[in-house]
Amino acid sequence: MKAYKELSREELLALKEELEKEYQAQKDLGMKLDISRGKPSKEQLDLAMPMMDVLSSTDILECENGTDIRNYGLLDGIPEAKKLMGDVMGVDASQVIVGGNSSLNMMYDCVARSVLFGVMGSTPWSQLDKVKFLCPVPGYDRHFAVTEQFGFELISIPMTKDGPDMDMVEKYVNEDAAVKGIWCVPVYSNPGGAVYSDETVKRFAALKPAAEDFRIYWDNAYVIHHLDKDSHASILNILEECEKAGNPDLVYQFCSTSKVSFAGAGIAAMSASPANIADVKSKMKWQTIGPDKINQLRHVKFFKDINGMREHMERHASILRPKFELVLSMLENELGEAQIASWSHPVGGYFVSFDAMEGCAKEIVAKCKEAGLVMTGAGAAFPYGKDPKDSNIRIAPTMPPMEELEPALKLFTTCVKLTSVEKLLEQ
Amino acid sequence: MKAYKELSREELLALKEELEKEYQAQKDLGMKLDISRGKPSKEQLDLAMPMMDVLSSTDILECENGTDIRNYGLLDGIPEAKKLMGDVMGVDASQVIVGGNSSLNMMYDCVARSVLFGVMGSTPWSQLDKVKFLCPVPGYDRHFAVTEQFGFELISIPMTKDGPDMDMVEKYVNEDAAVKGIWCVPVYSNPGGAVYSDETVKRFAALKPAAEDFRIYWDNAYVIHHLDKDSHASILNILEECEKAGNPDLVYQFCSTSKVSFAGAGIAAMSASPANIADVKSKMKWQTIGPDKINQLRHVKFFKDINGMREHMERHASILRPKFELVLSMLENELGEAQIASWSHPVGGYFVSFDAMEGCAKEIVAKCKEAGLVMTGAGAAFPYGKDPKDSNIRIAPTMPPMEELEPALKLFTTCVKLTSVEKLLEQ
Repeated sequence: MKAYKELSREELLALKEELEKEYQAQKDLGMKLDISRGKPSKEQLDLAMPMMDVLSSTDILECENGTDIRNYGLLDGIPEAKKLMGDVMGVDASQVIVGGNSSLNMMYDCVARSVLFGVMGSTPWSQLDKVKFLCPVPGYDRHFAVTEQFGFELISIPMTKDGPDMDMVEKYVNEDAAVKGIWCVPVYSNPGGAVYSDETVKRFAALKPAAEDFRIYWDNAYVIHHLDKDSHASILNILEECEKAGNPDLVYQFCSTSKVSFAGAGIAAMSASPANIADVKSKMKWQTIGPDKINQLRHVKFFKDINGMREHMERHASILRPKFELVLSMLENELGEAQIASWSHPVGGYFVSFDAMEGCAKEIVAKCKEAGLVMTGAGAAFPYGKDPKDSNIRIAPTMPPMEELEPALKLFTTCVKLTSVEKLLEQ
Repeated sequence: MKAYKELSREELLALKEELEKEYQAQKDLGMKLDISRGKPSKEQLDLAMPMMDVLSSTDILECENGTDIRNYGLLDGIPEAKKLMGDVMGVDASQVIVGGNSSLNMMYDCVARSVLFGVMGSTPWSQLDKVKFLCPVPGYDRHFAVTEQFGFELISIPMTKDGPDMDMVEKYVNEDAAVKGIWCVPVYSNPGGAVYSDETVKRFAALKPAAEDFRIYWDNAYVIHHLDKDSHASILNILEECEKAGNPDLVYQFCSTSKVSFAGAGIAAMSASPANIADVKSKMKWQTIGPDKINQLRHVKFFKDINGMREHMERHASILRPKFELVLSMLENELGEAQIASWSHPVGGYFVSFDAMEGCAKEIVAKCKEAGLVMTGAGAAFPYGKDPKDSNIRIAPTMPPMEELEPALKLFTTCVKLTSVEKLLEQ
């Protein structure tokens, strides 16, 4: 088979007819499939079920400093959970706050506090005419949505295989005092799977922001979420690099066990410099008396330490690896020769980022939907949900079982082919 | 023994000497006691320990609509938890949002959302020159602190035995568009133990606020927290009354199981009109994907329904009743005849509100502290922590065991007597 762009008009028309039949046949199956969200599968959630038994009514529910964890108190979490989540992020427990079940909520709260009260004494952002936030694209839609809700101007920064385009980041951050933050997923980025290079991390740490209250929102959501058996991505420690560069307060780091234990009932954490942590806690103390400490202890008892957590992640990887392999091999088999798309080859994280021919993504997603397959909305990985090239589609293969993933990808690739042919015929 | 004010100067001096000796003797005991915070005791927390066993690794963790509660989703909680918490508040499940472990955090978030985004389309409060909040006094320090942190002007409203002074409330709310809210603890108010009368609730429901975005923050924290065996306070249903009065959107109601199951690991909820709930959810959806649903199911499995919860509260009452009886009888025995103080006689809730002679509260609390007894800071129950009469002290008898409560009250009453005598000698 030839590349589509080398086909004659007649060949394209014939191909179109053939693909339309194929599409109709798949539609007639009445499928109901969903590869839209980065959710763990039932099988993955089952891995953590023994956690339901680690605490019982006969246990003494105290943490290591003797606090009765059933009662109020400990704003920043129990010491052993701070240690565990600190180890996930490579940070000392003293620089960690362990919260409730949602790292997204912790990030939202950090942004909201900055708007309401400022950052370490700066002017509250609500009093500023303009706040800008940098959004590496494609990126995580829920990140962008938080800053969109606050009315910030969102600026797209193209992603490379080594992280965001740092020339652009430096220009914006160092020259424009309205730029107050940037969203980063430094390891196995959502959705592209990029791992920030040492140079990228060092350039982040060496930023000289025009705004004193600029912060990097370093969402280390997939820091231990490797797919490959042997090669595990690891990046430079952002807090250490910031410290070395004389910028200790430049970053808020986040992580959670949402894709380690239970997506809806894990524990979330943030880490930062001592000055940032003190600033955050000085405001958090009006908001809550403390997080659910019993669930924190449950996690510590189950994982024991970072090694236990890493071993647990290998079990996740064993479930996820065949799914990613299936997706990648089907994309290659169905679309490789046609040369109408490119896609990421992630070695960790939760997504495959797919780029169709320009102007095709929305139509592909619509065709999928019509035939019973829900994809993430086209454009979702861009600020305001608008992909200027209408090209990017996020594939989330984790949730559906293998037997659903194959027909889903079969349908998806049919829609890609049909839409591409239609596009080529328009030209 | 006579009332102190009837004593001659000589008698007062002799009494002072005697009380100083008594105080010194108690100081020499080197006590370390704390009756400062409304925390449940270990014994009370033990009541809920069987809840640790209701879910195990062999259970299927689905809620009644079939959702896998281990995964992401269900922004407003699982249906059965909405039903249970709705029954606590007397509201249909459709008007309930069940959150994480902290109702304070839900209240804070409601205030923060109003500041950031406005209420049902109103101007965000951050864009207003002045926001005022009404604070019935004495009241709950953490309520007042939330609105103080946001920089609102806090206006004290005197409490009566039937609730806040409604003449003042109506005047402020109906005439001043800068007044955006009022903090209420309608049942067994913190700290005075008042139960809002039918008239009070009806007058609240019939308010005609000058501000379209005025909301009553109805913190029903002690709605099922009765002390008396036979007479259980019940009040009119505020949401129903608001609806009847043509003001369906006037109120946000809150409650939690913090003082039912575990103070640090309970579940919190809010209820309001359908329009308010839709408004809140439309903003919450950017903040989090959903609460910890496993802990919600754990609560439902343990309590089963509102009747199970009421039965459980009787066990709490059995533990608390002797403590309150001890406090009240010691206050009566030690201070009754001296006529130097008055105090509440609560039949529910967590506090005794104590009023010393004017200008004495700070000194009493300081003397207690010097001798090893931590009380809630004098003035804590007033906006900005300032009691204009320096008279009110909140006594929280729930946390310490009986054997510590007696020496604590003995010391407290000694300090009250000594400070009062010193005050009378100054005059």
